[in-house]
Amino acid sequence: MTSLLVTGIGSLVTNDPAHGGPLGELADAALLVDGSKVAWAGPRAQAPAADTAIDVGGRAVVPGFVDSHSHLVFAGDRAAEFAARMTGTPYSAGGIRTTVAATRQATDEQLTANVARLVTEMRRQGTTTIEIKSGYGLSVADEARSLEIARQFTAETTYLGAHVVPADHADDPAAYVDLVTGPMLDAVAPHAKWIDVFVERGAFDADQARTILEAGLARGLQPRIHANQLGEGPGVQLAAEVGAAAADHCTYLTDADIDALAQSGVVAGLLPAVEFSTRSPYPNARRLLDAGVTIALATDCNPGSGYSSSMPFCIALAVREMHMTPAEALWSATAGGAAALRRPDLGHLTPGAQANFAVLDAPSYLHLPYRPGVPLVTQTFIAGRPL
Amino acid sequence: MTSLLVTGIGSLVTNDPAHGGPLGELADAALLVDGSKVAWAGPRAQAPAADTAIDVGGRAVVPGFVDSHSHLVFAGDRAAEFAARMTGTPYSAGGIRTTVAATRQATDEQLTANVARLVTEMRRQGTTTIEIKSGYGLSVADEARSLEIARQFTAETTYLGAHVVPADHADDPAAYVDLVTGPMLDAVAPHAKWIDVFVERGAFDADQARTILEAGLARGLQPRIHANQLGEGPGVQLAAEVGAAAADHCTYLTDADIDALAQSGVVAGLLPAVEFSTRSPYPNARRLLDAGVTIALATDCNPGSGYSSSMPFCIALAVREMHMTPAEALWSATAGGAAALRRPDLGHLTPGAQANFAVLDAPSYLHLPYRPGVPLVTQTFIAGRPL
Ligand SMILES: [Zn+2]
Ligand SMILES: [Zn+2]
Repeated sequence: MTSLLVTGIGSLVTNDPAHGGPLGELADAALLVDGSKVAWAGPRAQAPAADTAIDVGGRAVVPGFVDSHSHLVFAGDRAAEFAARMTGTPYSAGGIRTTVAATRQATDEQLTANVARLVTEMRRQGTTTIEIKSGYGLSVADEARSLEIARQFTAETTYLGAHVVPADHADDPAAYVDLVTGPMLDAVAPHAKWIDVFVERGAFDADQARTILEAGLARGLQPRIHANQLGEGPGVQLAAEVGAAAADHCTYLTDADIDALAQSGVVAGLLPAVEFSTRSPYPNARRLLDAGVTIALATDCNPGSGYSSSMPFCIALAVREMHMTPAEALWSATAGGAAALRRPDLGHLTPGAQANFAVLDAPSYLHLPYRPGVPLVTQTFIAGRPL
Repeated sequence: MTSLLVTGIGSLVTNDPAHGGPLGELADAALLVDGSKVAWAGPRAQAPAADTAIDVGGRAVVPGFVDSHSHLVFAGDRAAEFAARMTGTPYSAGGIRTTVAATRQATDEQLTANVARLVTEMRRQGTTTIEIKSGYGLSVADEARSLEIARQFTAETTYLGAHVVPADHADDPAAYVDLVTGPMLDAVAPHAKWIDVFVERGAFDADQARTILEAGLARGLQPRIHANQLGEGPGVQLAAEVGAAAADHCTYLTDADIDALAQSGVVAGLLPAVEFSTRSPYPNARRLLDAGVTIALATDCNPGSGYSSSMPFCIALAVREMHMTPAEALWSATAGGAAALRRPDLGHLTPGAQANFAVLDAPSYLHLPYRPGVPLVTQTFIAGRPL
């Protein structure tokens, strides 16, 4: 193992409370990496010796983004559907079936190449951890291969057989739930860490979702939920009941939903790029923050409701549209994402953490929301190595 | 002169009416470049021979973006002001004075390096023509050097001595107008194509602006105006009266303003990244389009009201927030910008036009708004040469 000193950091966000402030930010700093881990962070003048050193010339360094919600295993193009939606056709979950048909027809190589392309694109934008869901296969074989492919790219794989009821089971949803909790679960379990359900009118109700999540739990998969995206509903309460790591979307919440999140410690995953791309109202982040709920920001990168892979874009939306402070937004895109994935080793640059970080062509992380749309990430390090 | 054939273009936007549709789009196309100009565009199978060829592997090619409004000559950092504004402090033109103070203190080398950095950043994002304004010097020497520096990067330089009345003339605005129309104009005239005035409460009124623009016209500078950004006002009507190329911002318009734009042929420059970064209402693009007004989309890249350099981001906002179709938004970001700069040789890929274009890592231009925040431009060509 060799050590690397990253020095000349104009502003270093550590998310380490030991350094004070909301982000443990250090000016004129250095970061020591030993192998794949952070060994030390502090003032440049006090930096320990290292085998090699790089000087980032006053640029800002932030923890790598943890994107806790994405759907990257798919085929087909839905750009025309997007364009139609922007001129008046509302978003409906039914469009998922378009992607299911294309995904089933694709070869493993095509699906793998598409995931590789998007993962590369995300990493270039500073994302160092990516949760990837299945959910466009919706057959035993296609869900299994989706998760096998996802697993080649990340440990954070999520079984989402319960994305929608596929057309081939439209007249017997109960049989589809049996498939999801039976043979499909058997086939995917070796490749998945998480199990997820789209709890929404038009997708799955609370009883179906509970059955599915409990079956997953019994197989050692941990639950997370697509909740309260298109209207109020039982998703958030169910997340609290089953001990889900995260309830994602949270666009429509009652006071009781917010209490449930605060009491249970379920992370609220906010996905503002979806509201951007569906022209929907944004979640009320301030209400969640005021109640003490932990927020994760994620892209939800998918071909239907929002195809952005950009965590900096999500940060800009969080500040502009959800009135999060730049510090709250960055924390939620890093440490918040790590909390949503139950990964205490990620999302911060404390000694012992994974050395995942991004170098920005900017003097401060503030430029992420201050310069929306601009590709500011100049270099991404994962486990101590540059891309 | 050597010729270059760009082939394997999955979708080629030409903005050439000869090819039909709103954008003259061709599938499975090729583009022949001869020296710095477009020589031919058409179906790949009919492509003429060329000295060299590159295959872009099915990617989309679009005309380079024409950013007709930017303020790149400045020094200082206003990220903290941005963060404060996002938590409640409204935008006011007064913040310009912060940048004036920093710009006056900067060396020529510092100012030049900052412009170079931003121009490079813009070109990497597909922008091939950039209008650059002065306006942070506001003294004879500082306006003159601002325009000399800008001229190193573009032919589209704009004298904006009338950005605000600087603090040193706060008690005698009339004397400042005399300076702007007298010694300052003499000093900048060799380096500027355009003259601009910020017509707004707190900046310059219609009479002052008319005096300034007419003085510029008499020296051979062509007029353009910052109009109707913070409220209704006389800017748009004045633009029509003096024959300005463009009235930019157009956030608050009366019916009479829209008639004036339509009748006069003044281009409406819409700058939605400013509305994004100031949390202001967006201009009503549909009302302008319905009236037959030509729209240019531009960034207004500046350190105060909006520091995005990204034309793709502006296109995404135009579609999401201003209900332009993706085709209208792309046209306005290319041919519309060229109209705002009176450059018939730019903004399209018709034979004889400048060979300025961007290659997208996407099968269609639709992905620009469909994938907001994602850096999709993989290569930019200016005058036939790759960056
Ligand atoms: Zn999702
Ligand atoms: Zn401006």
